[in-house]
Amino acid sequence: MTEPLLLRNDQAHIATLTLNSPLNFNALSDAMLLALSTEIARLAKDRTIRAVILKGAGKAFCAGHDLKEMQSHRADADKGAVYYQSLFAACAAMMQALQKLPQITIAQVHTIATAAGCQLAASCDMVVASHGTRFGVNGINIGLFCSTPMVALSRKVPPAVAFEMLSTGEFISAERAREVGLVNRVTAPEALETETRKLAETVAGKLAKASRIGKAAFYDQLPLTAAEAYALAGRAMVDNMLTPDTDEGISAFLEKRPPNWG
Amino acid sequence: MTEPLLLRNDQAHIATLTLNSPLNFNALSDAMLLALSTEIARLAKDRTIRAVILKGAGKAFCAGHDLKEMQSHRADADKGAVYYQSLFAACAAMMQALQKLPQITIAQVHTIATAAGCQLAASCDMVVASHGTRFGVNGINIGLFCSTPMVALSRKVPPAVAFEMLSTGEFISAERAREVGLVNRVTAPEALETETRKLAETVAGKLAKASRIGKAAFYDQLPLTAAEAYALAGRAMVDNMLTPDTDEGISAFLEKRPPNWG
Amino acid sequence: MTEPLLLRNDQAHIATLTLNSPLNFNALSDAMLLALSTEIARLAKDRTIRAVILKGAGKAFCAGHDLKEMQSHRADADKGAVYYQSLFAACAAMMQALQKLPQITIAQVHTIATAAGCQLAASCDMVVASHGTRFGVNGINIGLFCSTPMVALSRKVPPAVAFEMLSTGEFISAERAREVGLVNRVTAPEALETETRKLAETVAGKLAKASRIGKAAFYDQLPLTAAEAYALAGRAMVDNMLTPDTDEGISAFLEKRPPNWG
Repeated sequence: MTEPLLLRNDQAHIATLTLNSPLNFNALSDAMLLALSTEIARLAKDRTIRAVILKGAGKAFCAGHDLKEMQSHRADADKGAVYYQSLFAACAAMMQALQKLPQITIAQVHTIATAAGCQLAASCDMVVASHGTRFGVNGINIGLFCSTPMVALSRKVPPAVAFEMLSTGEFISAERAREVGLVNRVTAPEALETETRKLAETVAGKLAKASRIGKAAFYDQLPLTAAEAYALAGRAMVDNMLTPDTDEGISAFLEKRPPNWG
Repeated sequence: MTEPLLLRNDQAHIATLTLNSPLNFNALSDAMLLALSTEIARLAKDRTIRAVILKGAGKAFCAGHDLKEMQSHRADADKGAVYYQSLFAACAAMMQALQKLPQITIAQVHTIATAAGCQLAASCDMVVASHGTRFGVNGINIGLFCSTPMVALSRKVPPAVAFEMLSTGEFISAERAREVGLVNRVTAPEALETETRKLAETVAGKLAKASRIGKAAFYDQLPLTAAEAYALAGRAMVDNMLTPDTDEGISAFLEKRPPNWG
Repeated sequence: MTEPLLLRNDQAHIATLTLNSPLNFNALSDAMLLALSTEIARLAKDRTIRAVILKGAGKAFCAGHDLKEMQSHRADADKGAVYYQSLFAACAAMMQALQKLPQITIAQVHTIATAAGCQLAASCDMVVASHGTRFGVNGINIGLFCSTPMVALSRKVPPAVAFEMLSTGEFISAERAREVGLVNRVTAPEALETETRKLAETVAGKLAKASRIGKAAFYDQLPLTAAEAYALAGRAMVDNMLTPDTDEGISAFLEKRPPNWG
């Protein structure tokens, strides 16, 4: 009997997904990507879950793609061309599905998040990291520029910071990652689990429909001009206002009592 | 006799607009939005004014929309649908008109800027805030995700910072707001007025036509590709160069004398 | 005999370009722009060079356009209109060609980078600056808003930071420039040359083809939506994977030996 590659544990509207392949630092193998995609698709339809924590079992959060598996496809008739194309397409689809989840997603990162592992963290809405954690997109050190991780990373941090990480392969600390916008909160290693949980509970404690409306609008409006973004966001606000629980939430606030959200 | 909702005071090419509804923390009621829109339209045509300071009377800068007024429209036949649509459209139009003002705008923020109040600050070109001021887009706490404030906020700060503020409803300090790009200068509370005035005088002391050309080009080029942006900015530079006062400004510099801009 | 305006020195796959007009703080005159454009075009085809350092001779990195030369064209029949148009077009073309170089570019900045000089630094992939260096887009002080420098600057730093620099003409320190994303590394003045060289050697020591693929993809994907960006980056990854030296690089890593990149 083998342990599953991806563990899921639900508790009080919060799902925790644990990458469970510690022997290879939770590498994003084909099987791991499939497990993640499957669970993300399941979560997308799960109205009981309001927040998702993504973490890694063992010594590190995630060290990126499964290089051994990738190299094995050099023996393919086309030297791997079709396989690599599918692999990066599947990985990009998973990362984008993760970001598009209606729930709020939080990466709980310890020790190491490198290459596609850094991309995985950057594809979550928020990141909590422990002191001592290092972030890198260091594929260039072995001759493979982290072009796909770059998509997620360069949408979170200033371009010159992303470029330096990508071209030098050097790591940044959790503290610097927070300074530049990749990480939201930095904690002591022993507090990482609790602090991440606390953040998840905070967002899961909000009105779920409002968070769903807001999160969808957030990423939809980011690439638009301000005028287009306001048109989209205005529709989201009306939709949100017409939700009965929002009526109750605002009334409760005005009456200085807790909302009765059932 | 009631005091006006919005005060305007002009002094040495600088207009100061004061939100004057301290009892409800300068809420952006229909009447306040109208007063702001009207004054902004007036300023847009006023060639004597070069800089605009926007501040709030009383205990706080601005705490956002007028929730009581909004709730009252739940009694409308359509439960407020048309009213909310108009409200957010009017608010977004005002915020965009504020940003499009030919003059340079500075929010002078004390104590609290929340929800649409935070959006109002973020819609100014620059923000000066006093120590102890807190910024938040905390509508989610009462079941209303701050989708429209998000448009202005997420164009000023990194996405993960904006997302955390929006989804947790938590506040950030003036110091953190400066670190992430929402605030330009942080001052002691007792120096807020003077420091904001000083910044306004600095920009009002520049050649007005150059500032107008530059400000318009700034926001127009931001969403473009670099190639498109350079085409636009190149036209702005030529326009600026062909201004006689610019000839005088550059000549004066080369001759090491103050410019004679009359 | 006059010294050339632009010096080039190649050493171990690194080209160093030195702006060599110290008497006018390395002003970007027509001749200097032509020299830069010519050398950039040459570098674009030079497969022996992997990194480019750009620095200034004398007291400062670069103080921007040649104001005397610009003013002299006010005597033209059209008051300089056609000249200014060509000048800003030529300058923008050079800045964009610099960014599009297949090699990784590093500005080595000391003392002063102002106006188009700040733009020149911001148009390099990375910037190393010495303590005490000041960055500014201060044209507004003489009546000429730095609209073209703004294109490069506002793509590196948060908008409110760029706006403050542009509208006040005030300088920021090297340390603040690093905090906001304009500068990558800050060094002691006496270590500037060595530290810049070290960074250039780091990136030049990577697999050149991987860096070229990655750099091109980096700037191409920045203005795209995430979905478009992933499509582009996925193609870059496949291209990179199918490079024989990348096969060798990954194999070497898996076998815990140095790559044999010949």
